[in-house]
Amino acid sequence: MFELDPRLQRDTYLLGDFPLCRLLLLNDSSYPWFILVPRRAGAREIHHLAVEDQQQLWRESAELSRWLEQNFQYDKLNVAALGNVVSQLHLHHVARSIDDRAWPGPVWGAHPAVAYADEKVAAIRKLVQLGDLTEFVFEHST
Amino acid sequence: MFELDPRLQRDTYLLGDFPLCRLLLLNDSSYPWFILVPRRAGAREIHHLAVEDQQQLWRESAELSRWLEQNFQYDKLNVAALGNVVSQLHLHHVARSIDDRAWPGPVWGAHPAVAYADEKVAAIRKLVQLGDLTEFVFEHST
Repeated sequence: MFELDPRLQRDTYLLGDFPLCRLLLLNDSSYPWFILVPRRAGAREIHHLAVEDQQQLWRESAELSRWLEQNFQYDKLNVAALGNVVSQLHLHHVARSIDDRAWPGPVWGAHPAVAYADEKVAAIRKLVQLGDLTEFVFEHST
Repeated sequence: MFELDPRLQRDTYLLGDFPLCRLLLLNDSSYPWFILVPRRAGAREIHHLAVEDQQQLWRESAELSRWLEQNFQYDKLNVAALGNVVSQLHLHHVARSIDDRAWPGPVWGAHPAVAYADEKVAAIRKLVQLGDLTEFVFEHST
């Protein structure tokens, strides 16, 4: 059974579910930083997913990327599956700006996270809810 | 017309072409580090590629990942499209080990590259040539 890694659970806000992936907001207001986690128990590497799951993962990634483009200003998207610290398969989507605090370096481990204010998280939830993420089920339980 | 970014050209060895992507070996012997570059002029973001190109990119990424698994010891694959420095769309595949010099941090900007010895590059070319990269065309011009 799929269970979210405790560290991801601790460091993120749950926004809702795509057909395959859970969508999380990393609790670091330094950058718009979203994470897709395929709800497949034990998944660690993209190429180990069933082919249909791989295709669905990338569809959901593209949909999320389009939504980021519509709702945030950025100069470059960083899309990455690393997993050196949390091995549960998860795909980062970070909207990078040339004036963000880590540019042009990678965001991982660059700076301590700056927690979101509650209102900012609520505003991002609203954006998700109003966005045209066609297959997305918004998380209502929060 | 597609042209490889001069910085990627300078920092890598050309191994050959998949139907969509050029396969490069980063000239940093610190890690097995391969890069796929979709041969599409002006491409910067994955989700801006035509849908068929996105699907092909991920097929080639999975094929490369399986080949890495067969030919290298590693603990975790890092698969990432960043592009903060070189904006031409390119997809890193780095085979990470818990005893590599940057673990568990990201590899980008972590340490100066350690250039390969010629024989090591030749050995990697051989691995590619002998590998079961079914749609891969080996670069013969070197």
